[in-house]
Amino acid sequence: MKIAILGAGGLGKAAARIIEQKKEIRIVAACDNSGFAIDEKGIKPENVYNLKKNESVASIGKKSFDAIGEIIKKSRIIDGILITLPNLPNEFIPSVAKRFLQNGYEGAFSDPLKKTQAMKIMFKMHAFFKKKKSAYITGTGATPGLLTAAAVIAAQSFIKINKVDIFWGVGIENWEEYKGTIREDIANLPGYSLKKARAMSNEQIEKLLDRTNGILRFRDMEHADDILLKKIGIVDKLSQVSVGGVMDTRHAKKPVTTTMRLTGRTFDGKISSHKFMLGDETTMASNVLGPALGYLKRAIWLKKNGIYGVFGSTEFMPMFVK
Amino acid sequence: MKIAILGAGGLGKAAARIIEQKKEIRIVAACDNSGFAIDEKGIKPENVYNLKKNESVASIGKKSFDAIGEIIKKSRIIDGILITLPNLPNEFIPSVAKRFLQNGYEGAFSDPLKKTQAMKIMFKMHAFFKKKKSAYITGTGATPGLLTAAAVIAAQSFIKINKVDIFWGVGIENWEEYKGTIREDIANLPGYSLKKARAMSNEQIEKLLDRTNGILRFRDMEHADDILLKKIGIVDKLSQVSVGGVMDTRHAKKPVTTTMRLTGRTFDGKISSHKFMLGDETTMASNVLGPALGYLKRAIWLKKNGIYGVFGSTEFMPMFVK
Repeated sequence: MKIAILGAGGLGKAAARIIEQKKEIRIVAACDNSGFAIDEKGIKPENVYNLKKNESVASIGKKSFDAIGEIIKKSRIIDGILITLPNLPNEFIPSVAKRFLQNGYEGAFSDPLKKTQAMKIMFKMHAFFKKKKSAYITGTGATPGLLTAAAVIAAQSFIKINKVDIFWGVGIENWEEYKGTIREDIANLPGYSLKKARAMSNEQIEKLLDRTNGILRFRDMEHADDILLKKIGIVDKLSQVSVGGVMDTRHAKKPVTTTMRLTGRTFDGKISSHKFMLGDETTMASNVLGPALGYLKRAIWLKKNGIYGVFGSTEFMPMFVK
Repeated sequence: MKIAILGAGGLGKAAARIIEQKKEIRIVAACDNSGFAIDEKGIKPENVYNLKKNESVASIGKKSFDAIGEIIKKSRIIDGILITLPNLPNEFIPSVAKRFLQNGYEGAFSDPLKKTQAMKIMFKMHAFFKKKKSAYITGTGATPGLLTAAAVIAAQSFIKINKVDIFWGVGIENWEEYKGTIREDIANLPGYSLKKARAMSNEQIEKLLDRTNGILRFRDMEHADDILLKKIGIVDKLSQVSVGGVMDTRHAKKPVTTTMRLTGRTFDGKISSHKFMLGDETTMASNVLGPALGYLKRAIWLKKNGIYGVFGSTEFMPMFVK
């Protein structure tokens, strides 16, 4: 699989670390907002993940005001595109994907997108992706993604699903490595919005974290698990799905065990819950980018098999990447 | 989905009970070894699950020495076939599926097959199914099936999988309802074989159960979870997958919680385990036939999308059946 990584922040770098240990994947293109690198023979993953905090992909490639445009020019060498761009605003990622197709790319995409609103925009492009013979799988991270797919498996035992509760624990030693995704999470706190979170300086975020001892607690987050499960009929109402979590931004140890719990009624009238629990030692990087690459392999498979469109991570099993 | 149910023992009847509560499915054909029923407008599920212990499908349809042959004659009305026949000997289920295709059926199959040897015979027919434009998903019950699919999801977070441990608890009030599947399980006990288990009279099984107070304990069972996970590269060696369990044949309450535990190494060198646990209140019927129907919907989808062959339940996500 010759892939492009769009976005070289925390998620993009973590993807590069994982890819270094996966024989099946070669990075042939990477970019951020000020630079790009393209090499059909393969960009060394370490060149991506060794980029320093404020260092651009330009330092291993070329500077550009339109790095995505540069990658699009060479997109015929790309089997699949992993999108690890910050999704602020909601239209950004959908517009990038659209631009690839408008400029002749026919291929596959995987995107660990979290926000319901952004995903709705993606799904509206289903017909366009079909026309352009491309396959896009969205919501391919941990939640939605890994845990939502586990909910699809769990749902099999039940006639009627009452609720799906996803509660995650994340521990990160240094929040600044995940600036983009943490801003998206902060947007879920009472009194915050995407716009407000995006406008916050690092210092303001530090201040917020000082007040909470580095701990952020979330309830009823806007996570697209709900529309992904409703799309395939597992729940009837979005309110049956709840996503919450606890993030410790100062310690790698998880404050709680990440758990998906699906509760339903069986044909013989029993109410019961199946659970999927992630090992506490596994990090956000493993649980988000592992699935995102597994789904990218599936998206490439879909494209190869002539199945085109925009799909949720609940619609297909991720494939295992060796 | 207009489906046929082959085999009207405990599993076939449980399927009928589930289907009664699923709007999307209509039973258009059913059979056992001495009779069959066919009705394109739909056979009432209760007519199937109300059959008494020694009553044949003939009593709601017609007697026949070749019930399967009769269904094959009308197979153009069937979208998908659920196979709930006892798999003794290993060649039996594969030979039934083959016969459908040899006689002009083009469609979809789901089969909650458990035995490695039987599944190997199925996979050898991959090219034949491709040629006959049919899709067959095998191992679509609980294990393999529900729990093996959960292992595929769990594997996403890891670079290298060390082991997959499946340990199930089953409680059934009356083992005679599941004569076929329990004989298959007994074959796994030390000193037994499929042939020997099959030859046992009900009285001999009662005697065996009396000695163990109705409890059967299994370790390192021949379950096809191993070849299904190896087929897609999640494990390199079959020995990395172990299946065991405890069955209480006298109480509905499960003696242990059914758990799939996948242990692996992450890209950052951590050893950890993800777990998938089934609610204790859910029965074997829910956990085997629910997935089997979800996979049948997927098999019909595969056929519709021109993807033919024999596949494992680890290769595709089951679909949710409303």
